[in-house]
Amino acid sequence: MRSLKYYVASTLDGFIAREDGSFDGFVFDDDSTKDYLESLKEFDTVLMGRKTYDVGLKEGVTNPYPTMKSYVVSRSLKESPDPMVELISENVGERVKQLKNEPGQPIYLCGGADLSATLFAEGLIDEVIIKLNPVAFGSGIPLISPKIKQIDLVLTNSKAYPNGLLFLYYQVKQVSLSPV
Amino acid sequence: MRSLKYYVASTLDGFIAREDGSFDGFVFDDDSTKDYLESLKEFDTVLMGRKTYDVGLKEGVTNPYPTMKSYVVSRSLKESPDPMVELISENVGERVKQLKNEPGQPIYLCGGADLSATLFAEGLIDEVIIKLNPVAFGSGIPLISPKIKQIDLVLTNSKAYPNGLLFLYYQVKQVSLSPV
Repeated sequence: MRSLKYYVASTLDGFIAREDGSFDGFVFDDDSTKDYLESLKEFDTVLMGRKTYDVGLKEGVTNPYPTMKSYVVSRSLKESPDPMVELISENVGERVKQLKNEPGQPIYLCGGADLSATLFAEGLIDEVIIKLNPVAFGSGIPLISPKIKQIDLVLTNSKAYPNGLLFLYYQVKQVSLSPV
Repeated sequence: MRSLKYYVASTLDGFIAREDGSFDGFVFDDDSTKDYLESLKEFDTVLMGRKTYDVGLKEGVTNPYPTMKSYVVSRSLKESPDPMVELISENVGERVKQLKNEPGQPIYLCGGADLSATLFAEGLIDEVIIKLNPVAFGSGIPLISPKIKQIDLVLTNSKAYPNGLLFLYYQVKQVSLSPV
């Protein structure tokens, strides 16, 4: 079975963006960007939530990861804006299980909090890779949904960059959910 | 002027404890505990919020850091439960500025979110040291208060432990507040 990796940038206080989706204050440099782009070659499939997809879409980018088979999870979108991007509108867990059972390389889950909560809940996320930015936002879109009660992780690697970015690599050990 | 260091354990998603103050899932081992206790020797003064002080108080511990001059910030406490622990009940910023101007070693700010928000807002916190646990809680007491809009940090050091704990060392570069 292919592994599914939640690979996402976060603030030190656990936000993947501000409430409005912006992320001024995140840092970028050549070294970390090079490593990030290099690491994307590991994946042949990408999965994203609708809000995450919207970030690029607002700029006219309909296929943000052209080297990968792309899926957008959305109940509201009726039609994909790009022939190379497939919509998943229902039975998300079932559909992702099918994808994981197909032969191929690992699957890149690039956000966001809602979709990751669904997939954590179904035990489908195998790894979490955090680009930890040297900034705090105080509030915003959470890295991990409040629907999750606890995720126990195993740190497998970490790398610090001169600009203060840290890449943290975790395996998911156990997930428990908040009472509904 | 003495530096004030916010030195605190956090989940990967930015919570210093659950809503009820508990923190099952945080990891401890000999190596990291040894380093932590060793690093406490740097401080001769400790500052804590009332809720943080309450964690020990519930267990009958009235002076959790007996090697340091201890201050508890609280508007509700009328009298300190311990002759070695001094209450700060008003003019917190002014009082902490005075402490920083006294000769001595760095000051340990051991929590929590409310007190750190006040002190960040006044530009009084110089460093942030995070014991980043390999666990997510989904919700809880935030590492950084929503009163803070942004804190820009400089990563100065990091150390990983075999149990997955990461110690992250940051200098505070700039703080901006959320509009009231």
